[in-house]
Amino acid sequence: MSLKNDIMRIAKEAKSASLFLGGVSSQLKNKALQLMAEELIRKKEDIIRANRKDVRLAKKEGKTSAFIDRLKLNEDRIRKMSQDLLSIAGLADPVGEMIKIWRRPNGLMVGKMRAPLGVIGIIYESRPDVTSDCAGLCFKAGSAVILRGGRESINSNIEIYKALSSALQRCDFPKGCVNLIQTDDREAVSLLLTLSGFIDLIIPRGGESLIREVADKSKIPVIKHYKGICHTYVDEYADLAMAEEVAFNAKVQRPSTCNAMECLLVHKAVAKQFLPKILERLKKAGVEIRGCLETAKIYPGIKIATAKDFSTEYLDLILSVKIVNNFEGALKHIAEFGTKHSEAIISNDFQRGMKFLKTIDAACVYINASTRFTDGNEFGLGAEVGISTDKLHARGPMGLEDLTTYKYIVIGNGQTRT
Amino acid sequence: MSLKNDIMRIAKEAKSASLFLGGVSSQLKNKALQLMAEELIRKKEDIIRANRKDVRLAKKEGKTSAFIDRLKLNEDRIRKMSQDLLSIAGLADPVGEMIKIWRRPNGLMVGKMRAPLGVIGIIYESRPDVTSDCAGLCFKAGSAVILRGGRESINSNIEIYKALSSALQRCDFPKGCVNLIQTDDREAVSLLLTLSGFIDLIIPRGGESLIREVADKSKIPVIKHYKGICHTYVDEYADLAMAEEVAFNAKVQRPSTCNAMECLLVHKAVAKQFLPKILERLKKAGVEIRGCLETAKIYPGIKIATAKDFSTEYLDLILSVKIVNNFEGALKHIAEFGTKHSEAIISNDFQRGMKFLKTIDAACVYINASTRFTDGNEFGLGAEVGISTDKLHARGPMGLEDLTTYKYIVIGNGQTRT
Repeated sequence: MSLKNDIMRIAKEAKSASLFLGGVSSQLKNKALQLMAEELIRKKEDIIRANRKDVRLAKKEGKTSAFIDRLKLNEDRIRKMSQDLLSIAGLADPVGEMIKIWRRPNGLMVGKMRAPLGVIGIIYESRPDVTSDCAGLCFKAGSAVILRGGRESINSNIEIYKALSSALQRCDFPKGCVNLIQTDDREAVSLLLTLSGFIDLIIPRGGESLIREVADKSKIPVIKHYKGICHTYVDEYADLAMAEEVAFNAKVQRPSTCNAMECLLVHKAVAKQFLPKILERLKKAGVEIRGCLETAKIYPGIKIATAKDFSTEYLDLILSVKIVNNFEGALKHIAEFGTKHSEAIISNDFQRGMKFLKTIDAACVYINASTRFTDGNEFGLGAEVGISTDKLHARGPMGLEDLTTYKYIVIGNGQTRT
Repeated sequence: MSLKNDIMRIAKEAKSASLFLGGVSSQLKNKALQLMAEELIRKKEDIIRANRKDVRLAKKEGKTSAFIDRLKLNEDRIRKMSQDLLSIAGLADPVGEMIKIWRRPNGLMVGKMRAPLGVIGIIYESRPDVTSDCAGLCFKAGSAVILRGGRESINSNIEIYKALSSALQRCDFPKGCVNLIQTDDREAVSLLLTLSGFIDLIIPRGGESLIREVADKSKIPVIKHYKGICHTYVDEYADLAMAEEVAFNAKVQRPSTCNAMECLLVHKAVAKQFLPKILERLKKAGVEIRGCLETAKIYPGIKIATAKDFSTEYLDLILSVKIVNNFEGALKHIAEFGTKHSEAIISNDFQRGMKFLKTIDAACVYINASTRFTDGNEFGLGAEVGISTDKLHARGPMGLEDLTTYKYIVIGNGQTRT
């Protein structure tokens, strides 16, 4: 069978399954999620065996140890995947929720009801735990999912998919609820992205180049984030002890994540007092400092930051530092170099805090806290399928709710329009 | 100056103005809207003169009388446009509204605040009243707008734009808040649709072919609706007197609109009782009936409806009629032929009503009322910029709220992540 027919068949099965899944009760969906969790444990040997094969091939290809670490599964990780499915079963079902309802003068009741999207396509890197996670979230949100993981994880993904499929079969759900593209042919993605009649949303996860390629090619709406160049701005009215803790945390606690601080902005009035101590502490923690000329005057011996530094998402123990002349200078720098992800101000000035919240154009805007909190669980949304820096539909961490749409419902007793 | 430079300049001015407009108070925005309303009246002679030119050219080109009617402005219509701007000034400002806010166990306050989209592009047919309407709505929603109206209305649009610009100037708003593409070169639209770094959303309004062309070409997210094939399903448990009134209204009250009924579905158990009377009444009102074979048995002498009829948005006094064997048959027909716009059931059966609401995949789902209510004003949203049958971001009538996005705001007192 040709690749095109194959992809088309999957899309059709997903669409057809989505019509069933959209009308299923929360209880039945939760039961299915529990069986999925169970099957992952039951089939853990198969999964680990397939994963060993993936890891062996990836090592042979000379992948980095960070890459291998994300790829590798063991019993603990599978147990975590299984538990995450149970957590999703425990989340409130967004489908059918009445968002609001109001009465019109003619007696019509008009309201908004949350509804499933239909079919969601997820294109992601070689992280097999994402397979069960995304399958579980889309399933609970009432949508069929088409998964396409990185080619290096294909054997692991196939075994995980088999476990999820077998759970669906055990409780009489159509297997089209969860679909995996089981070829590493890149053409499969291109084909998928043309099927706007069958797929309602594409979420790409991974490196910027992958995401740009998907966004450029897709005929289907895409929600995504390219990168996170997150700033922490220490204002002249900051509590400097707090600023130090927050900035240190934002940079060092997990530098490889998109919500880690990449650039520290400091008001010139407090730079001399604030910078030497925090920079020394960061240096001791292994952070390479790249500062503006003014920073270098206060804290000599560092590399001078270029415009390229300010536009780079390091994802590493490297930090750009810039001293700004005033609050407006910080706003301007963020408007120029920010990526609409997460931006923070540290200040005890009420007006400035409020102006920062209102003015900064980003998915998440912080006062007096670490940008590292940009995360579905930390926000209290439950698990997330990713983070959006887009402006339409969903912004920030995308939880269950963001995987749904709504419909207007109108209830009358014979109203006609005059 | 080349067209490309020209479009780029407009996009840059819009982007820059949007940064200003996003932070402006409701009072100042409302003041500007009042001045816009005033300027339209002050410049009404200029507008009418330019409109006469447009109308003359359109007649020469042999445009239909319906087309000319939409194009034509007179003092009354300009007064209406002016009043509509005042109504928009009277609507609640969505920007800065806190949608919700909650407290996390660590004391962080996490919330969602409504925020402007940035720059909105609107591509529409030759209806000059849309120019001021869309300008006003986007302006109130805190976004700069780039307007591109049909070429036949270009002289009218330029004069309306001048009036709006002069109002902006009078209250010191950057003129980039409202922009008009003042050439009828079609290439201008193609160029506009590539500027994803400057424009956040495109809303095309008009015929299906225009909208498909925009959606296909655009590198910017598009919200739209192609067409409205709206069904009214008369269930076996319907109040038939109510069904008659609602169906008659949905078809006849204004057949040229996208929310008018195009197809009447009737449960076979009530078809003999219901159909002759309603079809006779519709016929008397000038409606051409195209029915299924079963319908023709009950009400002979009609044209037999084909699959093509069931897929056609007549926008005219023509109606498809189909008798279905059961409730599921109606759901199936709507799933196959519906356009996700507005669908209604007439029934006194509670379970069926609820199932209809839950199952039907459409922007607006009705129980016991005419689909003609799908409209921003009728829903109580205030003026609308159009109707969306998309699933992402906004569905149904798009009012002020749907022209905004949100951001997460996080307020702490030094929280760090562990």
